[in-house]
Amino acid sequence: MALIRSVFQDELDGVSQSLVDLSEMVSESIAKATTAILTVDLKLAEEVIATDDQIDTYQHNLDARIIDIIARQQPVASDLRALVTALRMSADLERMGDMSHHVAKIARLRHPGAAVPSELVEIFQDMGAAAQKIARKTGEVIATRDTEMALQVERDDDEMDQLHRKLISMLVDSSWGNGVETAIDLTLLGRYYERFADHAVSVSRRVYYLVTGKFA
Amino acid sequence: MALIRSVFQDELDGVSQSLVDLSEMVSESIAKATTAILTVDLKLAEEVIATDDQIDTYQHNLDARIIDIIARQQPVASDLRALVTALRMSADLERMGDMSHHVAKIARLRHPGAAVPSELVEIFQDMGAAAQKIARKTGEVIATRDTEMALQVERDDDEMDQLHRKLISMLVDSSWGNGVETAIDLTLLGRYYERFADHAVSVSRRVYYLVTGKFA
Repeated sequence: MALIRSVFQDELDGVSQSLVDLSEMVSESIAKATTAILTVDLKLAEEVIATDDQIDTYQHNLDARIIDIIARQQPVASDLRALVTALRMSADLERMGDMSHHVAKIARLRHPGAAVPSELVEIFQDMGAAAQKIARKTGEVIATRDTEMALQVERDDDEMDQLHRKLISMLVDSSWGNGVETAIDLTLLGRYYERFADHAVSVSRRVYYLVTGKFA
Repeated sequence: MALIRSVFQDELDGVSQSLVDLSEMVSESIAKATTAILTVDLKLAEEVIATDDQIDTYQHNLDARIIDIIARQQPVASDLRALVTALRMSADLERMGDMSHHVAKIARLRHPGAAVPSELVEIFQDMGAAAQKIARKTGEVIATRDTEMALQVERDDDEMDQLHRKLISMLVDSSWGNGVETAIDLTLLGRYYERFADHAVSVSRRVYYLVTGKFA
């Protein structure tokens, strides 16, 4: 029994490690997507788009493994809850990869033009850096189950929301002369970064709830 | 044993019925949100916003019930797969409710002004009608497991994508004189309707996969 339990524990640890790996993949993909769109780098944009397929496949295989563990081990109570939560976290992380993919697709669509006008490069640099930081920290939250760090992720998301509001106010500023198409691109880009961070918060909250039994 | 199996079957049927109920709730919420924003009806917008809490609670309780069924019945193979899929469908449906909520929030934000200029009312009526239709049909797909209807949902989503592209082309049209703030609102609104339909497709595809074992 002790031995079976230990195999199960190894399986749970493996699931957790795969979620950390996914966090690292999406942290890297949003960083690359940001560079691609701000430096008008088509090759890098294509790389991000291709990587999203790998992220999807990774998630698909992870989910199959989690369901297989539930079927074989028939866990109850907290172990079952942890595995169901892992499915939800993998969905959030996969969706974060989609957001990087969307950013890269706008970079590709506007190439060889720049999707982001020069006066807005800095704010997107900040949003990209905030997104990468929040994804990395989310990976650490999964790995360490550190509830204090989970709360930090919430604060990082507040920072992202501030940047997003600042972006929108810059767009509606009366001196705007970049045309409606650019405004549409930038509105969508802003939304993608905001959603990326929201999904990271969702993952961190799930860890917080698993550890404490309370909502953050 | 036959009796236990029958109780389990009743529980699965109950889960399926709850997913149908959720589909109806989000079908109604997107219809009301569309009316609220196009007729500048603050009271109706507030109603949609309040209903979203009910949808969230309904989904939360449904998920708890599904996890409880997995813990008690310890299903394997196709039954386990169906229950895990039900969790994913409830997440998609809850997210559809969020989209209605987002639409209603823009209506509230711009009240007593109109978020949608008169020349774009018709296209948003069409998007609202398409969203309501696709949500209703998704409910029928869940109830009947009709794979032909699941494929129809894909085609309804193509219709939504066409409306969305038409909206964007109307926005970038050079005669646009409604300002950037309105362009931002309409870009986000378009995205909400498009995402609403995407989640409906996701639900229908999951049903298709459960029934056929193949991807649509």
